[in-house]
Amino acid sequence: MIIGSGAYRDGVRLPDDPDGSGHQDFEELAAACGVHSDFVWVGLFDPSEEELQTAARAFGIHPLALEDAEASHERPKVDVYDDTLTVVLRPAHYVEATETVEFGQITLMASPKHILVVRHGDAVPLVDLRSRMEKKPEWLAQGPGAVMHAIVDEIVEAYVPVLTGIADDIDEVEETVFSTSRDSPTQRIYDLKREVLEFGKAAVPLADVLGKLRVLNHPVLNDELRRYFADTNDDVRHVVDQITTDRELLSGALEANLTQVSVRQNEDMRKISAWVAILAVPTMIAGIYGMNFEEMPELRSR
Amino acid sequence: MIIGSGAYRDGVRLPDDPDGSGHQDFEELAAACGVHSDFVWVGLFDPSEEELQTAARAFGIHPLALEDAEASHERPKVDVYDDTLTVVLRPAHYVEATETVEFGQITLMASPKHILVVRHGDAVPLVDLRSRMEKKPEWLAQGPGAVMHAIVDEIVEAYVPVLTGIADDIDEVEETVFSTSRDSPTQRIYDLKREVLEFGKAAVPLADVLGKLRVLNHPVLNDELRRYFADTNDDVRHVVDQITTDRELLSGALEANLTQVSVRQNEDMRKISAWVAILAVPTMIAGIYGMNFEEMPELRSR
Amino acid sequence: MIIGSGAYRDGVRLPDDPDGSGHQDFEELAAACGVHSDFVWVGLFDPSEEELQTAARAFGIHPLALEDAEASHERPKVDVYDDTLTVVLRPAHYVEATETVEFGQITLMASPKHILVVRHGDAVPLVDLRSRMEKKPEWLAQGPGAVMHAIVDEIVEAYVPVLTGIADDIDEVEETVFSTSRDSPTQRIYDLKREVLEFGKAAVPLADVLGKLRVLNHPVLNDELRRYFADTNDDVRHVVDQITTDRELLSGALEANLTQVSVRQNEDMRKISAWVAILAVPTMIAGIYGMNFEEMPELRSR
Amino acid sequence: MIIGSGAYRDGVRLPDDPDGSGHQDFEELAAACGVHSDFVWVGLFDPSEEELQTAARAFGIHPLALEDAEASHERPKVDVYDDTLTVVLRPAHYVEATETVEFGQITLMASPKHILVVRHGDAVPLVDLRSRMEKKPEWLAQGPGAVMHAIVDEIVEAYVPVLTGIADDIDEVEETVFSTSRDSPTQRIYDLKREVLEFGKAAVPLADVLGKLRVLNHPVLNDELRRYFADTNDDVRHVVDQITTDRELLSGALEANLTQVSVRQNEDMRKISAWVAILAVPTMIAGIYGMNFEEMPELRSR
Amino acid sequence: MIIGSGAYRDGVRLPDDPDGSGHQDFEELAAACGVHSDFVWVGLFDPSEEELQTAARAFGIHPLALEDAEASHERPKVDVYDDTLTVVLRPAHYVEATETVEFGQITLMASPKHILVVRHGDAVPLVDLRSRMEKKPEWLAQGPGAVMHAIVDEIVEAYVPVLTGIADDIDEVEETVFSTSRDSPTQRIYDLKREVLEFGKAAVPLADVLGKLRVLNHPVLNDELRRYFADTNDDVRHVVDQITTDRELLSGALEANLTQVSVRQNEDMRKISAWVAILAVPTMIAGIYGMNFEEMPELRSR
Repeated sequence: MIIGSGAYRDGVRLPDDPDGSGHQDFEELAAACGVHSDFVWVGLFDPSEEELQTAARAFGIHPLALEDAEASHERPKVDVYDDTLTVVLRPAHYVEATETVEFGQITLMASPKHILVVRHGDAVPLVDLRSRMEKKPEWLAQGPGAVMHAIVDEIVEAYVPVLTGIADDIDEVEETVFSTSRDSPTQRIYDLKREVLEFGKAAVPLADVLGKLRVLNHPVLNDELRRYFADTNDDVRHVVDQITTDRELLSGALEANLTQVSVRQNEDMRKISAWVAILAVPTMIAGIYGMNFEEMPELRSR
Repeated sequence: MIIGSGAYRDGVRLPDDPDGSGHQDFEELAAACGVHSDFVWVGLFDPSEEELQTAARAFGIHPLALEDAEASHERPKVDVYDDTLTVVLRPAHYVEATETVEFGQITLMASPKHILVVRHGDAVPLVDLRSRMEKKPEWLAQGPGAVMHAIVDEIVEAYVPVLTGIADDIDEVEETVFSTSRDSPTQRIYDLKREVLEFGKAAVPLADVLGKLRVLNHPVLNDELRRYFADTNDDVRHVVDQITTDRELLSGALEANLTQVSVRQNEDMRKISAWVAILAVPTMIAGIYGMNFEEMPELRSR
Repeated sequence: MIIGSGAYRDGVRLPDDPDGSGHQDFEELAAACGVHSDFVWVGLFDPSEEELQTAARAFGIHPLALEDAEASHERPKVDVYDDTLTVVLRPAHYVEATETVEFGQITLMASPKHILVVRHGDAVPLVDLRSRMEKKPEWLAQGPGAVMHAIVDEIVEAYVPVLTGIADDIDEVEETVFSTSRDSPTQRIYDLKREVLEFGKAAVPLADVLGKLRVLNHPVLNDELRRYFADTNDDVRHVVDQITTDRELLSGALEANLTQVSVRQNEDMRKISAWVAILAVPTMIAGIYGMNFEEMPELRSR
Repeated sequence: MIIGSGAYRDGVRLPDDPDGSGHQDFEELAAACGVHSDFVWVGLFDPSEEELQTAARAFGIHPLALEDAEASHERPKVDVYDDTLTVVLRPAHYVEATETVEFGQITLMASPKHILVVRHGDAVPLVDLRSRMEKKPEWLAQGPGAVMHAIVDEIVEAYVPVLTGIADDIDEVEETVFSTSRDSPTQRIYDLKREVLEFGKAAVPLADVLGKLRVLNHPVLNDELRRYFADTNDDVRHVVDQITTDRELLSGALEANLTQVSVRQNEDMRKISAWVAILAVPTMIAGIYGMNFEEMPELRSR
Repeated sequence: MIIGSGAYRDGVRLPDDPDGSGHQDFEELAAACGVHSDFVWVGLFDPSEEELQTAARAFGIHPLALEDAEASHERPKVDVYDDTLTVVLRPAHYVEATETVEFGQITLMASPKHILVVRHGDAVPLVDLRSRMEKKPEWLAQGPGAVMHAIVDEIVEAYVPVLTGIADDIDEVEETVFSTSRDSPTQRIYDLKREVLEFGKAAVPLADVLGKLRVLNHPVLNDELRRYFADTNDDVRHVVDQITTDRELLSGALEANLTQVSVRQNEDMRKISAWVAILAVPTMIAGIYGMNFEEMPELRSR
C-alpha cells in the first residue's frame, strides 16, 4: 500500500494531481522523476509482492534490492545495486503495557531521482516525518540522501526510549532480586536477556551500516550528509555500548539471584537446625524420664 | 555415483546421447567440455575414491581439490587450485522426528568449462535444482559460476528452517524451565547447545567463504555473480547472528534452570521446616505432660 | 552559564574589560578572537540551549558539534566538523560517602582561534586549571590544542582515584565473602559490577578517542601535542586494563560468594545431621523401653 | 642422537658410506651438502646441547634457531634466521590407556641445502616418513621444503585421532552427567577441560604459523608447497574450531553436572520431606493419646 | 640512587675514576657520553624526583619519558621521545614463602650515546647483569640496544619461574578441590585468579611492546637486535598463552569446587534422609504400642 508520495524540486513539494489524490500510481510517480521534479519520495506499507514488482519496474530497481524489501527479518545492511543505494533497518519500539520490545523492518532504496521507503510492522511510525522534512526545504534540497538520513536518524533516536524501558525493567528486577521477597525473578531476568539479545541483533549490525555510509562514495550522498551519518553512527555505538552493558548486568543479575535463592535457603536451613535442636533435647530427656513422673503440676486437672 | 550430468550451450541443455542414458562416462563428459557446449555440469553422490580419481583426471583437477571432495568433514572453505575454484560447504537439515540437526558435505569444483558437484550425506537434497536452473537459460548462460551460486544460495536458505527448528526447541525448553513441573530439562538444554555449536561450525566459516567470493577475481565469476554472493553473505551473517543469540540464550537457560531447581528445593525446604516445627511443639509438651493426664476425652473408649 | 573566559596572546592572558567583569558576552569574545589575541578560551557550565546557540553563532560552530555539547550522555568521541575539532569526554568522580561513582560530561570545541569548554554535572571540577595553565605561558602559547590536552589529561588523571576507590571496595567485598560472617555481600558485588561497567562506558571509548588524537592532522594540534596525547592514551589504556581486571575479579567474587553460601549451608546441614542422629538413637530406645522402667533415679522426687 | 640421515639428489637418496653406517658425523653431512647432493636431511632425537652446537656449527645455524630446538616447551612458531627457515611444532598423541593427551616438540630448520629435524618426546613417531617420502622422488626433488611440509602435515593429521579421543571422552562424561548414577564426573570434566586447553596451546598458534607459511617468500618454498601449506592450514583451522567447541561443551557439561547434582539433592529433600510428614502426624497423635489407651489389640500378648 | 654506571668503548668498559668510586655524578657521566666512550650505561634504583630531573637534564631526556620513569605502576609500553627510545616493563617475582607474586617497574631510556635503567621495587634484581654483559664485549659493542635487549630478555625469562609457581599452586588447589577433604579452597582459587589477572596486566601489554620493537626503526636498534626482540616476543606470547590457560583453569576450578561442595552436601542430605527414615518407623510403632506392653525383657531389671 502506498502511504505517501510526493515529487520535490529544490526541496519544495510539487503540487499533487488536481484531484488531490496524490500520485497513487507507480508509473505516474516514475514519470515524475526528474522531469519536472528533482526527485520522488514514495512510502509503502506492507506492500504485496506485486506492488513491489511494479515499483521495481517503474523505478528500475535491482531484483536483489527488491528481495531485501520483503518482510523477511533481514539483518540491517547497506548495499549498492547499480545506482540504487539500499539500506535495511530494524526499528524497535518499547511496549509499556507488556514491557516487551517490538521490531519492524524498513528498507530504503535511493537513487538520485527517487527514494522508496518500504515499511513492515509498525514498530516506528515515523509520525509526520514527511511534513517535518517539508518544513526544511533547504535541507530537503539535498535530495534522497537527506530523506535517507532523516529516516535512519529517526529510527536510531527511537532506540533511546527502548533502552530506557529496558533499563527501568532491569532496575525493577534488581529490586526484586535483593528484596527479602521470596518471589524469584528468574523468568523476568531471562526474558529481559532474550529481549536485549534481540535488540542487539537490530542495533549491532547497524553500527557497521553507518560506518560504511560515513565513507561511502555514492551519488545520493555528499560530505555534509556523510558527516551526519557519522554523527548517527556515534549514537548507534552508544546504543551498542548500553546493550553490551545490559547483557552483562543481566548475567550478573541471574547469578546474584541464584545466590540470593541459596541465601534464603540457608535461612530456612538454620530454622530447621534450630527446631531440630529444640526437638532433640527434651525428646531425649522426656523419652527417658518424662512420662513416669508421678507428681507434675496440672497433671490431675480436668 | 554420477547422479546427474549435462552439457550446456548459451544456458540451454544440449541433448544427451541418443539412447537417453545421459553422459555416464567422465571421459565423454570431459570431451564434451568446450567442444559443442560452453560447459558441463556433473553431479556425484558419495563417489568412491576411484570415481573421484577418474573425474579428476578427466577434468584436470588438482589433487588437493580432490582431497577436499572426500567425505572427511571438511571445514567450509574456498580455494583456488590452478584454474579450479573449489568451495566446500556443510549443508544442514532439521529432522523433526528426533528434533536433531543433520549435516552433509558438498564440494563444488568449477572451471570455466565445467562444474563438478560432489555430495556426501543427504542433509540437503537440492531437489530439482537442475531442472529449476534449466528454466532460466539466460541466468545459466553465465556458466559454472551461476550454478555455483545457485547451490550455495540453496544451502544457505536451507539453514533457515534449521534455525526455526532450533528456535522452537528453545521455546519448548524455556516453557519447561519456567513451568511448575519438576522435570528438569538440563539434558535437553545441553543437547541443544551441542547442536547449536555444531551448526556454528558449519555456518560461521561460511561467512568467510562468501566474504572471499564477493571480491574474488576468478574466470567463473563476474560482477553480477559477486553481487549475488554478497547478498547470500548477508543471509549467512544473519544465520551467524542467530546462532550467537541461540548460544547465549541456552547458556542463560542452563543457568535459569539451575536457579529454578534451587527455588523448588527451597519450597521443599520450607515444607520440611513447617513439618519440623509442627512436630517439635506437641512433642515437647507431650513428652513432658501428655502421657500422664488421667482424664482425656475418648481415652477409655473401646 | 559562562564560568570563565579569557583572550590569550603568546600564551599570556590579555587584560579583561576595564570594569573587571571579563568577557561576559559571546559577541565580544568572538570579536576578540584573532584581532588582538591569538585565541579565546571560554568555559560554560550547564548552558541553556539558547546560550549554546548564541555561542555557536558567535564562533561559527557546526550544528552537529553543538548537539554533542548538550547534556545527553554522549559516548566519548572525537569529530572534526569544518575547522572545529570536537572532543566529548565523560569525567568520573568517586564519592566516598556513598561509595559510588558519579559521571559528568565535557565537550571541547576547538578551532585555531578559540576553544569552548562545555561542562555538565560536576564530576570533575577542573579546579584552578585556567590559573595553573596561565602560569605556563610558553606551553599555553601552543594555542587551543594545549588547553584541550590539559583538560583531557586532567580528566584521565581523575580516573585514578576512582580506580582506587573501586579497588578498596573490592577489597572490602572480598573480606566479607571470605569471612565467617553470614552477611552475604551479593548486592554489594552486583552494585560494584554495575559501577565498573558504567565506568567502562566512559573510559573504553576514550582509548579510541586518544588513539585518533595521537595521529590526527588538524591545525590545533602539533607533533609535541600529539606526543602528549599519546602519553595520555597510555594512561587510559592502563585504566581500561584495570577496569577489565575489576570486572573479572567481581565475576569471580560473585561465584566465590555463591560457593561460600553453599559451604555455610553445608555446615548447617552437618549440624542437622548430627542432631537428627542424636535424636534418633535415644528416641528409638526410649520409645520401646524407656517409659516402662519402674525404677529410675529421681523418678519419685518432688 | 642422530636417528636418521641421508643426502638426496633429484629426490633420490644417494648411497651411504660403504660400511653402511650412514653419515653419523655432522661434519661429513655438512660436507655432503651441495657437493654431490642437492640437500641433506638429518633427524635428531633428544640431542644433547653439545650435539646441537656441533650441528649448528656444521650447518651454519643461527644461535636463536638453536635455542628454539632445545626442549623448552616452545610455542609453535615460524621464524627466518639468515637463510634458515625455522618452524617449531608441538605434536600431540592420545594415550588410550590413561585417556590423556601427551605432547612433544619438533623443530625444523631448513635452508636450500639441508633440513634438520629435532624431536623431543615421542608424541608423534613420524613412523617411516623417510622411507615413504623416498618412494615419491618427484616430490622429494622439491628439496627441504617438501620434507618440511610432509612433517608438518603428518603432525596436523595426527591431531585428528586426538580430537576423536577427546570427543569419545566427552561423550562418556555426558552419559555419566545425565545418567541416574550418583557418581559425579566433576573431576573428569575438569581434567578434560585442562587437556583441551593444553591442546589448544599446541594447535591455535599453529594456525598462525601455517598462515605465514602460505604466503612466505623463502628459497625453500615454492608456489606448489605454499598451496599445500594452505591446505594444511585449513585442517588446522578445523582442529581449532573443534577445540573451541569442545571447550564450550565442557563448560556446559560442568554447569549441567552442577544442576544434576542439585536435582538429585532435590529428590533426597523430597524423601526427607515425606518421611518427616509421616513422622509428624502419628507422633503428635501418639504423644497426646497413644500411651494411655487401655484397650489395644495385641497389647497384652506375650 | 645510582647503583651502577660505566662508560663503554667497543664493548669494553673504560676505567672508572682513579679513586675507584665510579661516575657518581650525572654531569660527569653525561660528559663521558661520546667523548672517550661510545656510550654510558647508568642504573638507578628508586631515584628521588630530583635525581631523575638531574639525570634528565644531563642526558637531555624528554619530560614525558621522565614521567614514565616514576614509580606510578605504569602499563608496559614503548615510546620514542625525540631520539630517546623508552621502554617500560613490569618484572615479576614469585615469592615461595607467601605463594604470591610481586611486581616491580623498570624504565629503560636509550639513545645512541646512553642508556638509563630506572628500577622501582626489587621484583627482579638483574643480578650481575652488568658483569655478565661485560664478558661479551663483541655483543656489548652493539651499544645501548644490546643492553636494552639483555634487560628485557632477562625480565621475560624471569616470568617463567612465576608461571611455574602459579602452576604448582593450581595443582595444589585442584587436589584440594577433588579430595574428600571438606576444606573449601574457594579463597585460594580466588586469590590465585587475582594474581593471574595481575600478572596478565604485566605480560599482555608486553607482547605489544615487543611486537613494536621487532619492527621499530630507531638508531639504537639494528637487524640483529630486532631479531632478538622477535625471539623474546615469542617467549612473551608463550607466557600470555599460559596466563590465558591459567585463567580458564581457575574459572573451571571455581565452578568444579562449587559442584564438589554440593556433592558433599548431597552426602549429608542422604545421611539425614537415612536417619529420619530410621527414626520414623520405630517412633510410629512405639508411639502407638510401645509404652503399654506389659511384658518386655529387661523391663523390671534394676
